[in-house]
Amino acid sequence: MKSIVIHAARDLRIEEHAAEQPGPGQVAIALAAGGICGSDLHYFNHGGFGAIRLREPMILGHEVAGHVSAIGPNVTGLSVGQLVAVSPSRPCGACRYCLEGLPNHCLNMRFYGSAMPIPHIQGAFRETLVADVAQCSDATGLSPGEAAMAEPLAVTLHATARAGGMLGKSVLVTGCGPIGILSIIAARRAGADRIVATDLSDFTLDMARRVGADETVNMATAPDGLSRYAEGKGTFDVLYECSGAAPALAAGISAMRPRGVILQLGLGGDMSLPMMAITAKELDLRGSFRFHPEFATGVSLMQKGLIDVKPLITHTMPLDEAEQAFLLAGDRGQAIKVQISFN
Amino acid sequence: MKSIVIHAARDLRIEEHAAEQPGPGQVAIALAAGGICGSDLHYFNHGGFGAIRLREPMILGHEVAGHVSAIGPNVTGLSVGQLVAVSPSRPCGACRYCLEGLPNHCLNMRFYGSAMPIPHIQGAFRETLVADVAQCSDATGLSPGEAAMAEPLAVTLHATARAGGMLGKSVLVTGCGPIGILSIIAARRAGADRIVATDLSDFTLDMARRVGADETVNMATAPDGLSRYAEGKGTFDVLYECSGAAPALAAGISAMRPRGVILQLGLGGDMSLPMMAITAKELDLRGSFRFHPEFATGVSLMQKGLIDVKPLITHTMPLDEAEQAFLLAGDRGQAIKVQISFN
Amino acid sequence: MKSIVIHAARDLRIEEHAAEQPGPGQVAIALAAGGICGSDLHYFNHGGFGAIRLREPMILGHEVAGHVSAIGPNVTGLSVGQLVAVSPSRPCGACRYCLEGLPNHCLNMRFYGSAMPIPHIQGAFRETLVADVAQCSDATGLSPGEAAMAEPLAVTLHATARAGGMLGKSVLVTGCGPIGILSIIAARRAGADRIVATDLSDFTLDMARRVGADETVNMATAPDGLSRYAEGKGTFDVLYECSGAAPALAAGISAMRPRGVILQLGLGGDMSLPMMAITAKELDLRGSFRFHPEFATGVSLMQKGLIDVKPLITHTMPLDEAEQAFLLAGDRGQAIKVQISFN
Amino acid sequence: MKSIVIHAARDLRIEEHAAEQPGPGQVAIALAAGGICGSDLHYFNHGGFGAIRLREPMILGHEVAGHVSAIGPNVTGLSVGQLVAVSPSRPCGACRYCLEGLPNHCLNMRFYGSAMPIPHIQGAFRETLVADVAQCSDATGLSPGEAAMAEPLAVTLHATARAGGMLGKSVLVTGCGPIGILSIIAARRAGADRIVATDLSDFTLDMARRVGADETVNMATAPDGLSRYAEGKGTFDVLYECSGAAPALAAGISAMRPRGVILQLGLGGDMSLPMMAITAKELDLRGSFRFHPEFATGVSLMQKGLIDVKPLITHTMPLDEAEQAFLLAGDRGQAIKVQISFN
Repeated sequence: MKSIVIHAARDLRIEEHAAEQPGPGQVAIALAAGGICGSDLHYFNHGGFGAIRLREPMILGHEVAGHVSAIGPNVTGLSVGQLVAVSPSRPCGACRYCLEGLPNHCLNMRFYGSAMPIPHIQGAFRETLVADVAQCSDATGLSPGEAAMAEPLAVTLHATARAGGMLGKSVLVTGCGPIGILSIIAARRAGADRIVATDLSDFTLDMARRVGADETVNMATAPDGLSRYAEGKGTFDVLYECSGAAPALAAGISAMRPRGVILQLGLGGDMSLPMMAITAKELDLRGSFRFHPEFATGVSLMQKGLIDVKPLITHTMPLDEAEQAFLLAGDRGQAIKVQISFN
Repeated sequence: MKSIVIHAARDLRIEEHAAEQPGPGQVAIALAAGGICGSDLHYFNHGGFGAIRLREPMILGHEVAGHVSAIGPNVTGLSVGQLVAVSPSRPCGACRYCLEGLPNHCLNMRFYGSAMPIPHIQGAFRETLVADVAQCSDATGLSPGEAAMAEPLAVTLHATARAGGMLGKSVLVTGCGPIGILSIIAARRAGADRIVATDLSDFTLDMARRVGADETVNMATAPDGLSRYAEGKGTFDVLYECSGAAPALAAGISAMRPRGVILQLGLGGDMSLPMMAITAKELDLRGSFRFHPEFATGVSLMQKGLIDVKPLITHTMPLDEAEQAFLLAGDRGQAIKVQISFN
Repeated sequence: MKSIVIHAARDLRIEEHAAEQPGPGQVAIALAAGGICGSDLHYFNHGGFGAIRLREPMILGHEVAGHVSAIGPNVTGLSVGQLVAVSPSRPCGACRYCLEGLPNHCLNMRFYGSAMPIPHIQGAFRETLVADVAQCSDATGLSPGEAAMAEPLAVTLHATARAGGMLGKSVLVTGCGPIGILSIIAARRAGADRIVATDLSDFTLDMARRVGADETVNMATAPDGLSRYAEGKGTFDVLYECSGAAPALAAGISAMRPRGVILQLGLGGDMSLPMMAITAKELDLRGSFRFHPEFATGVSLMQKGLIDVKPLITHTMPLDEAEQAFLLAGDRGQAIKVQISFN
Repeated sequence: MKSIVIHAARDLRIEEHAAEQPGPGQVAIALAAGGICGSDLHYFNHGGFGAIRLREPMILGHEVAGHVSAIGPNVTGLSVGQLVAVSPSRPCGACRYCLEGLPNHCLNMRFYGSAMPIPHIQGAFRETLVADVAQCSDATGLSPGEAAMAEPLAVTLHATARAGGMLGKSVLVTGCGPIGILSIIAARRAGADRIVATDLSDFTLDMARRVGADETVNMATAPDGLSRYAEGKGTFDVLYECSGAAPALAAGISAMRPRGVILQLGLGGDMSLPMMAITAKELDLRGSFRFHPEFATGVSLMQKGLIDVKPLITHTMPLDEAEQAFLLAGDRGQAIKVQISFN
């Protein structure tokens, strides 16, 4: 069984491991599609991000889908051959936060492909993946690539839920990588009215309009493009900050109306914030981290045709070309989501 | 100028009045379409509802749209010929509730076609209507009939906003008259996942499925049809109660999960409620009354093609056939929304 | 070991049972004080309430405190002789609702002294009680009687939390039994400004004023006493409905301001509600059921002297006089909370 | 009539002006007490703060109370000699935000003593002040000094309301100047359980404990004093950030539990924030700015004895010693709130 293993920055290897067998309450999954995510890219390009660094080889990947290939004891509701989207989130179900209904803050979380704990939590980019039934959402009717989008989609659905009601709201999205694009889709699905998106790349802004943004602003060529939204104490009710860039956030804040909500999705380092504006406009800056019920919600909404993620999947490449796939995934001039095909 | 005037139950007359001229901040509107609403029907069939009774002749109607025909002094932003949806809501802008951001609770509200105060507030079913600019939402791109749906749509968008976040929620709609059907549309637009609707009429349930309900239950032929949703303390997160019927509400309550939210939209009389279930499941029964910013929101979402109300408009009849239109509007076996054409 | 066992309406017996031994994670408690609650009274007077009826003998009681007398294996943090308030709530920690942070809706709840499931869940009125560590809150510094008030106090703290922010709010409390009186205390503790209370008994209304109500209305002698609060669409932001009586609720609703919140605490049967007022004022009727973190919160606030429940404990009677205690507890003309001393 | 006028940093003058007469809906007030606030100190010490600079002489002061001395036409409810607390907040009542119930974001706000607009809004430190009836809250039963505390108290009550329910919460207060001390009082009044406060001065921390903090940490002498609260992903539900100092905020963030709420009260410049922690713990950083209904709420709670601000008023000095009062007010080693007596 092949896996995609990162050893250090720019040292990505395809390695052979013995396949695991599913235990009680588990299934084996023949992986079909795996999307490359921003944190995967951080490990690939920099060997980590912030204080989190690779200390040992780690299988990458947490956006995956595949077909059930074997079923362990005491499993009901899944059958061999069925397409499932696999959530990378494995909370313990017993700690303080799990029992408060906040499993994304589980004290014992084992989230695929994370170098935060030692030993690292190995990822999901492997030909055969053993997963708990609770991780699997039936994805019948979707393509494997769509099913593998359930994870980043869930991130943006979770942020959307964090915003409270979205119906009729004016929304700004700063940063149109995969999370920004999915934020546009999620805000639209939740009833947003006006959606404006910013980025520095025309390619990603084209995608933003394609998935439903009413207006886009290229801050590289029109750095003052949000100023008309800043009049009268501002315009936007909600800001999805997906760039991780302080200037984008600052420009966004100036265009927010009083009591607006800023959803911080990007995982970056320290950032300098205009606290005077945050205080005087009574803005509400909310971190949003991972997801939980939103994983199954996203799969269901895709199955009903209420959310369409296909436009985002700009490239699908075979497992053997994993390194090229990683290089391409980092190029915002031509790629949004790059997926690896494991078939 | 002709108007549709109710004198007493079943005494509907088309009368000639002198047309008013628009004052400062006002426009005259050549009415194009007017929808018949449940309260119009109550006046027509019963001379009122609950403690509210007709004491004098009253022009009916509050779901209207038309083309601007004359412009008063100090008006900007509107031009002759433009299609506008006209909100029937005219709060004072100065009372305690207006200044709390609750104009739908205005102490001096003048809402078209209401026999609650004396003298009654005259309605909007007149060939030429004078309205304040603040009542008018540009409806360019819509048909007059769609624009006239802005009012009942706003009622359901307001209820949806009252529910808080709707993304991924399981929703039950009891009663599939126009408000129930629009509730399905509103819940879907706001991100609901599963939507189940109940009624006693196959005709309205067909419409429910046509606008997006995942499942419908005819409680006349399958009175136990919600029982499977009652297992494990219940299923639905949100209930739109649009029937005004106690048995529908009681059946709905049994299918609600703990902490579920019941949106009470129907204006009925006293109702006997299963308080034990409400308390023990910690349900949340919320009245929802009229709307305010949701009127413009609905028009905008229709203009963007994000909400489609056309299927609901089952009949359009000329002004001269107003009485037949009212008779038809009360027939849930063949009509959802009946509109009168004023052209 | 003696227990207080109900066999049928008015058939209360003091019986001898063998004492249990604490298992892993458990302690034995020498009960010191036990308060008689409304549901205990329902079993005593009527053999049940609503659809819930006694099917077999059941030990009563769920408002208890005592001193740790023995410690089972694997227990830390408790020592022999320590006074603890014992929560009657024992959720499973594994069901859907427990994992959503809603343990009061646990599908497998074992709440002391409930005839809802068969076999019934036995109660806590026994000289020696074995309890899980998670049920025990250190109550050092309180009297056993105060500690035994933690349970009904938690019910009202939970309702208060359900109301959202209470700071500066105008509050109405209908019904001044123990739960009504504790609601006054809880609302005051959470920052309420004006508090008005109603009842039919001058004795309980005296207590209401004593614990902090600004004004009381005896609805028996001044049935119109809330009418001045009904002007201008009403006054109160929050209503704690603790009477279970439809006329009290109806009078309260007329005095509620738009968007007011009604907390339904009483467990009664069906009730006829003025739905027109609930809808038109957009009131919010919220069931409130039991509690969870509020148990420990109440103990802590009592220990800090921020909540004083001593005035409510109008009578303390020895175990041998249990029947007289039950008779007295039902007399709203002279008793608020009657406790049984187990020493 | 004497006023206290700032001309430039450290150029404070007592000047003679002609007294105004009350117009319709206004009263004249013989000022009794005026508290020196942080923004007054900024003008005095630095001639402004952030981008806001003095451009012309400005009367300082916005924490004032006095006795009604003359009554203009059309005034009801106030009588000569009555003590009133005077709110510095004068929203227009007609702009978009006023009509949304957000008068603290009024587009045309005239808040006493602000150099933000030009001409500056003159302040309230004058022997005779003319004010609108809507600004005046009856303060009968309070001392003028207590009444003059209504304004900073309202700031902290508003922040507390922004936090949502406070009952049983664990609270951290960083910075124990007047706003920090009042935050402790407000949090306690709203039902907080554990309250921990930090500062660099033992004098202010003594005051923190005196008004109800359970524990204090001097971050100058015990820089690691919050670390035990950082275990298990953190402890505090709510943080009142009153220091305006980035290190205090960073230390506070490390001690916050997931989903905790940070209330940003200080008006400072840009601040570098640990965005990784904010995102990963899903913290919620909320600006809080001024107040509106909380002004009257605070006066009422003081009148009922539910809030006691007297300990904070460390010094009261006559008008003629205004400059010494300003110098003293800036010394956190011996003063919390310094008030000027205008009698």
